Amino acid sequence: MIISMVIAYDGTAYCGWQVQKNEITVQSEVERALKELTGEEIKVTASGRTDAGVHALGQVISFETNSTILPKNFYKALNTVLPSDIKALSSKLENEGFNARYTAKRKTYIYSIYQGNSENPLKERYATYIPYKLDIEKMQLALNKILGRHDFKAFQASGSSVVDTVREIYEAKAYFENGEIKISVTGNGFLYNMVRNIAGLAVAVGEGKLTLCEVEEILTSGERNNKFKTLDAKGLTLYCVEY
Amino acid sequence: MIISMVIAYDGTAYCGWQVQKNEITVQSEVERALKELTGEEIKVTASGRTDAGVHALGQVISFETNSTILPKNFYKALNTVLPSDIKALSSKLENEGFNARYTAKRKTYIYSIYQGNSENPLKERYATYIPYKLDIEKMQLALNKILGRHDFKAFQASGSSVVDTVREIYEAKAYFENGEIKISVTGNGFLYNMVRNIAGLAVAVGEGKLTLCEVEEILTSGERNNKFKTLDAKGLTLYCVEY
Repeated sequence: MIISMVIAYDGTAYCGWQVQKNEITVQSEVERALKELTGEEIKVTASGRTDAGVHALGQVISFETNSTILPKNFYKALNTVLPSDIKALSSKLENEGFNARYTAKRKTYIYSIYQGNSENPLKERYATYIPYKLDIEKMQLALNKILGRHDFKAFQASGSSVVDTVREIYEAKAYFENGEIKISVTGNGFLYNMVRNIAGLAVAVGEGKLTLCEVEEILTSGERNNKFKTLDAKGLTLYCVEY
Repeated sequence: MIISMVIAYDGTAYCGWQVQKNEITVQSEVERALKELTGEEIKVTASGRTDAGVHALGQVISFETNSTILPKNFYKALNTVLPSDIKALSSKLENEGFNARYTAKRKTYIYSIYQGNSENPLKERYATYIPYKLDIEKMQLALNKILGRHDFKAFQASGSSVVDTVREIYEAKAYFENGEIKISVTGNGFLYNMVRNIAGLAVAVGEGKLTLCEVEEILTSGERNNKFKTLDAKGLTLYCVEY
């Protein structure tokens, strides 16, 4: 049977999602836990990879198993063998053909920024400290520019080999929540580093370093400039995946 | 000259505040950093010890130094040599005789609890997961009982040798904030484990395991019962100290 499971993790200690030789990754920990639980060598598929240091509150994974554990209780059983920085939140039986990666329709990422006179060790792990003033309305205007279908070539990590760099953004918002500035972006898919670059772009506009005209230029030319940065991985959380 | 400094730390990696042989503590890290910065062997006094795993957003420390660094900039200089989970937030020159411990008038601790269907790895580090329903109004009624001067003998860790166990509580509140239940307690001082026991008491009342009459009995008899627990250190943060 095929099971899907929603999982959350603190990415700080992991070299990202995907299994890599000689590295501890979230995928390798989940697969190790599944083996411990079921005795099976189970290969897990996620809705998408998250990079080293990126967190998740609603990553979705799918896998095939012959285990007799009830699908809706599977996540509870798995939590008994997962490390404390990875937790399964729910699980269910899926139809044949379900694949967490290929059937994902919308993904939402949230980037968290905190401000103030100095860094805060209780926020540092899940948010990025930006000391200078940010105009959140301007940030929203920058985010409005990326709505819809665009070639996001300028927003992927340098050296990426992805051929089709067109993606569609359904929602992009900048807002205050819990004393932090949040940038949430919902799209049909994201290139490597794309959300961290979108967040960096919004911040550059918010601090007045980059104009809205320049944002348009970057989108139409596909060429990035050095006025915006890729923000740190630690501020990014995969919030939810819709199917 | 005597300098006071407000510091914040994530207590997860430390064996509490106080220097202990062969253990890394917040105090040992701060004193190591001060030596690296000034070349002096500086002994630091905190407003009070925090236990292993307890965090701080507004711990106050004081120390004597012959350094020529301006007092108001001292914290910035110190941050260059502190680890990322300890940060100095401000510093200033104090009059002779200032002592962060003996002149402290009020301390506020905040205990954080989160609920939901399952543990959340992005909350686990700074809050305690309590899955069952809590009646926050009942929790407040329990906290009202501890206001004022009381003998908190029943609220200290077993085996404590403190003779005077009378403390005064000025404020004690239970409220929702940022999707969490917070218990904040302000007093003139706290016994070892006292706040974690007060939080445990409020939770036991909130879940209906302990009555308000029993709370009064515990306070007047000085004897604890097994209907309430000492909550985990990780949910506790020293929020501020007033002088």
